[in-house]
Amino acid sequence: MIKDILITSLDQIDTPGGSVLHAMKESSEGYTGFGEAYFSQINQGAIKAWKRHKKMTLNLVVPVGKIRFVLFDDRDNERDFQEVIISKDNYCRLTIPPMVWMGFQGLSSGASTLLNIADIEHDPLEVDKRSVEQIEFNWSEQ
Amino acid sequence: MIKDILITSLDQIDTPGGSVLHAMKESSEGYTGFGEAYFSQINQGAIKAWKRHKKMTLNLVVPVGKIRFVLFDDRDNERDFQEVIISKDNYCRLTIPPMVWMGFQGLSSGASTLLNIADIEHDPLEVDKRSVEQIEFNWSEQ
Repeated sequence: MIKDILITSLDQIDTPGGSVLHAMKESSEGYTGFGEAYFSQINQGAIKAWKRHKKMTLNLVVPVGKIRFVLFDDRDNERDFQEVIISKDNYCRLTIPPMVWMGFQGLSSGASTLLNIADIEHDPLEVDKRSVEQIEFNWSEQ
Repeated sequence: MIKDILITSLDQIDTPGGSVLHAMKESSEGYTGFGEAYFSQINQGAIKAWKRHKKMTLNLVVPVGKIRFVLFDDRDNERDFQEVIISKDNYCRLTIPPMVWMGFQGLSSGASTLLNIADIEHDPLEVDKRSVEQIEFNWSEQ
């Protein structure tokens, strides 16, 4: 387990006409303030990797589909990977602190959707990027 | 148009592997604080109606599917209805102040998903409910 990564189980509530899915409360563990909320959609098999935020804490929830998140920690001379697959079958919130590399892959047919509740607004100057090849990981193996 | 309802157009950004969809920033019009974010899913044809929040301001975004929102304002001896259909074809955020009745209906095949970014945490004591029949509206007509 990578230091300061949180995985928090969330409730799904069945109601007539469709479910209610919890995402985040002001009082939730991992909440560090509200800066911006946005969605990212990912097609089956597609990979978006790699990004590292210097200031932003990410809080990720997957209300639709199934997404594999891969985290890579190279702080403090470590080289640790951690993988989490989130869907309705494992419905949880993934909290990623600054300075951890992150990539993700769509695993369900059609597009999967993640919500990021971030504690600062989008700022390209605080994002480091590497191409998918620049951090070696076997995305085809599951 | 019902007083204090905001409809704010939002950006969809095409990126390789899937779109990024804006939802809300701290600096956005309609943002009144963060209390809780949750999803509500609605099956095709299903109706969830009616609710009125006494304290909560709702900020609603639809990243998946197509949802018809119907608002009913009976403040100040008015009887005004307003209808908004939100999907990727009309991608916007709907801000609903306290004391306006709200109902919604799923319009796309499969389930549609809304995100509510609310300025207080869920509190059943601040919610008024009426059954769908108690406020007359022709849900079958579009």
